[in-house]
Amino acid sequence: MKTIRLTLAQINCAVGDIDANSRKILYCIEKAKKLKSDIIIFPELSLSGYPPEDLLLKPHFITKCHQYLKKISHSSNSILAIIGSPYFDKGELFNAAIVMYNKKIIGVYKKIFLPNYGVFDELRYFKPGKKSGVLCLPQGLNIGINICEDIWQANGPASIESTAGQAKIIINISSSPYHAGKLNLREKILTQSAKANKAFIIYCNMVGGQDELVFDGASMCFNPNGRLLCRAKSFEEDLLTLDIPDQGLFRAKLRLKGNSKKTIEYFKLGMQFKEKKSFYPCRKEKKLGKLEEIYKALVFGLRDYCSKNGFKKVALGLSGGIDSSLVATIAVDALGKDNVLGLSLPSQYSSPGTKTDALILAKNLGIKFQIIPITDIYKHYLKLLKPAFNRQRLDITEENLQARIRGNLLMAFSNKFNYLVVTTGNKSELSVGYCTLYGDTVGGFALIKDVPKTLVYKLAGFRNKIEGAKIIPESVFRRAPSAELRKNQTDQDSLPAYKTLDAIIDAYIEKDKSASSIVKKGFSETLVKRVIRMIDRSEYKRRQYAVGVKITPKAFGRDRRMPITNRFQE
Amino acid sequence: MKTIRLTLAQINCAVGDIDANSRKILYCIEKAKKLKSDIIIFPELSLSGYPPEDLLLKPHFITKCHQYLKKISHSSNSILAIIGSPYFDKGELFNAAIVMYNKKIIGVYKKIFLPNYGVFDELRYFKPGKKSGVLCLPQGLNIGINICEDIWQANGPASIESTAGQAKIIINISSSPYHAGKLNLREKILTQSAKANKAFIIYCNMVGGQDELVFDGASMCFNPNGRLLCRAKSFEEDLLTLDIPDQGLFRAKLRLKGNSKKTIEYFKLGMQFKEKKSFYPCRKEKKLGKLEEIYKALVFGLRDYCSKNGFKKVALGLSGGIDSSLVATIAVDALGKDNVLGLSLPSQYSSPGTKTDALILAKNLGIKFQIIPITDIYKHYLKLLKPAFNRQRLDITEENLQARIRGNLLMAFSNKFNYLVVTTGNKSELSVGYCTLYGDTVGGFALIKDVPKTLVYKLAGFRNKIEGAKIIPESVFRRAPSAELRKNQTDQDSLPAYKTLDAIIDAYIEKDKSASSIVKKGFSETLVKRVIRMIDRSEYKRRQYAVGVKITPKAFGRDRRMPITNRFQE
Repeated sequence: MKTIRLTLAQINCAVGDIDANSRKILYCIEKAKKLKSDIIIFPELSLSGYPPEDLLLKPHFITKCHQYLKKISHSSNSILAIIGSPYFDKGELFNAAIVMYNKKIIGVYKKIFLPNYGVFDELRYFKPGKKSGVLCLPQGLNIGINICEDIWQANGPASIESTAGQAKIIINISSSPYHAGKLNLREKILTQSAKANKAFIIYCNMVGGQDELVFDGASMCFNPNGRLLCRAKSFEEDLLTLDIPDQGLFRAKLRLKGNSKKTIEYFKLGMQFKEKKSFYPCRKEKKLGKLEEIYKALVFGLRDYCSKNGFKKVALGLSGGIDSSLVATIAVDALGKDNVLGLSLPSQYSSPGTKTDALILAKNLGIKFQIIPITDIYKHYLKLLKPAFNRQRLDITEENLQARIRGNLLMAFSNKFNYLVVTTGNKSELSVGYCTLYGDTVGGFALIKDVPKTLVYKLAGFRNKIEGAKIIPESVFRRAPSAELRKNQTDQDSLPAYKTLDAIIDAYIEKDKSASSIVKKGFSETLVKRVIRMIDRSEYKRRQYAVGVKITPKAFGRDRRMPITNRFQE
Repeated sequence: MKTIRLTLAQINCAVGDIDANSRKILYCIEKAKKLKSDIIIFPELSLSGYPPEDLLLKPHFITKCHQYLKKISHSSNSILAIIGSPYFDKGELFNAAIVMYNKKIIGVYKKIFLPNYGVFDELRYFKPGKKSGVLCLPQGLNIGINICEDIWQANGPASIESTAGQAKIIINISSSPYHAGKLNLREKILTQSAKANKAFIIYCNMVGGQDELVFDGASMCFNPNGRLLCRAKSFEEDLLTLDIPDQGLFRAKLRLKGNSKKTIEYFKLGMQFKEKKSFYPCRKEKKLGKLEEIYKALVFGLRDYCSKNGFKKVALGLSGGIDSSLVATIAVDALGKDNVLGLSLPSQYSSPGTKTDALILAKNLGIKFQIIPITDIYKHYLKLLKPAFNRQRLDITEENLQARIRGNLLMAFSNKFNYLVVTTGNKSELSVGYCTLYGDTVGGFALIKDVPKTLVYKLAGFRNKIEGAKIIPESVFRRAPSAELRKNQTDQDSLPAYKTLDAIIDAYIEKDKSASSIVKKGFSETLVKRVIRMIDRSEYKRRQYAVGVKITPKAFGRDRRMPITNRFQE
């Protein structure tokens, strides 16, 4: 049987840890050899991790990648391996797919389309490649190679590889960051590409968390009709293996048209396919539901951040509100209940209801729980400040002070016992600056900073539903949200209803809409302008906020680079 | 007399404030008309401010720029104006120089070389232009136009404009960010360009502060021999006017070679030079000394940040150490003594010497001063935490707690009286993370975050010297630096001597040197690796730090984009 077997190594690479990444690559190569695979494929920049950012400006970082590529190539004796790595050639740096076989590097494909929008800065580091890449096997099978963004271009290298290059299989190695719905988008693009190029599409994606980003894996293969053949797991490492039988594919003329050499780099090699006893069964992991997918992204993002940064346990303030409740459940799902500490830090303004709910939640989750009332220390501050503040009225100063005392206490636990403090603020709050800098914003990882409040409720509801129990107490959902920093305060004293607020945030932040076009959607002009003003004026708070998992198409951070000093008025 | 008069309008533009920027532009146009100038030149992106960052992704922001360009053009009836603005053309956005005359936009030059390194992200927003630009005056004078980075390229548009385009004058509009020594670098590049192109170089630079950046102005003109003819002020708005007499320059053939049209866009216009009664005298502002220049950059950076963000006054913690002493003098020079509040927040570990020095400094400067001891509240925290901390030893937790109490108090004054809190940490501390997050790091503007400790001493000495008095007490210079967070603590318990530390920081951060190459400079390997490890592990602190003035070639922030999750080990 003339069949080619491919293994997609969807691995979790650590940025900068070339040594560990290469060990993982070697481990997968050995596994794939045992599976009798002919080709093994690794994600984009798998050797360096993605995105390595300014590590790429260190010449010795690149040198180390080259050294390890050579080392890895020595293991490629009976399998063809395609590995993503930064690659330095004639004074220029490329985002490359290194092709190895028979203990040698037989070719280097250089990414042509370098994304430089959203979270991406690839033109800061890389030069674009100029030629598409085609691997020519003696069986008459041509395989196109390209990297991530390349395949999102309708007339990009995949098209050249399949037409001029006669490629019947196109391999794309990716590190495609997650946002909700991205998998559907990828499926659509890859189906289109398979059909347009009349080729199998083999798409190997990165998995793992890296600061603001989560890579969700879900590597996929499509047949030339655009049908999904197999899919790897989401948010987990996975090896996905696929057999492609001849079916009339293997008929590329080895004598290639001369003029195609201008646009294509051909990598020829004399590989024989391994003997296979049987057809390897396809595996298609099921697609996650919308809420499940986001929830998993958050769990995975937190777990991987902790693991890669050397934290075993996390602490958070449990206010009895919906945000900290959700963060607590995610933390338990990510790290286990024994590794989560909930601190209840009530003041004189904390209601019996929220205090009880914090306690019930902690009990339901079985996490460590401590109560430290802040009222006395708060009063002590007031006394200390009284001479300076004289007879000034209580205002936001005193509200912030309470939040900052809580921040101090959380950080004290962090320092003393090495907890990572997880910030519990959501995207709606952070957008309009409804948070206290150095208060409720303290922490090293802002887990739900990209989750709008309305979605916080949905995710909390989802978590209760899969538990089949009200692990987050029902009253947490019902109670009007409040920062509880003064008497009878609710969020809606200062903010519009969250449904309205989130819709304006979506239009203004995600979609860059103008005030007037948001007003046309049916919101009051005064309200829209007020919200926009709040968003613009809070940029300094966001700049001092921790990183957290991106789940929307436009998150704060590398994704949205707004000036703090900004006098643009809609 | 056949003489052309040019006015360089070195203006301070506010990012986003298209309306205010355009008013400033119109004001300068009217002034230049009165000076009988033939041409007025504004800096790069003067209409939008620079860098507008993701404001450029808002279509209505660009539309507003276009509307205002049209409005401004109506004032260009008797003067030719060259204005920097984002410009949208056939679905693509450009960084452009808009040429206006006779109430019309007669040409648009599109920047060709878009910097995308260091602090620059221009490829995120703009498409590169394809043609050099030459303005053809009927007198037979051709004038080349280009933008900032364009002239840093030896074979860039200036070269094409002067050869194929026969330009004898080359105008470059810039927004070139300051770092120490940048002016010398610019002078060198522009001298070279003048000589190589045998042309006058008219270089109009932005002035102003924008978040991390300061634009220092110092606009300049050079003759074709590379001699500096005139220079505008540094760190101030300025109008610089220059007369260029014919001297055989005005001899370009109006009938241009056809093939040069492929590389050059010609803007022809029928302008007559204005009658001039006398030659306008050149003005050459003196170059500042190295320390004076940096000191002025810091003063200007703080003043402009305050003014553009609506702050009149600042507060800072006065510890009696050198960092806060320097920051206090800069703040006074920037905003006046009445707008500076120094808070002395001593603990049981504060020495009489530092407490006295803080007081003396405040007196010398004449600033507002308050003393609020933190010992009681610190003890209160310890009591509160005792049950949870049990019999754990005192450690960094309690040190950080003191710093965080101070942070809370500073922020309370900020909230109550609308002070901008100025963070007093220096680059050496921030590099190795020798600072407490949410403690001494609080603040909206981190004035000296890019100033290494050794330079802090020099700048403080410089300030005393120009005062001709020990405004910063001598003992502040002599005392061993200490955070005073435990008994008999000094910085050098945890860190190498600052001279050594700063040298390693310079090699590792500024120059991206590897550990081994730093060791070769004569430092111990253990020390180098320890310092590098401290630097790498502190990235999360830097990510939550305020913006501050860039004064070195590589500052933290947009300039150095390192991952927090980073497992690269030297």
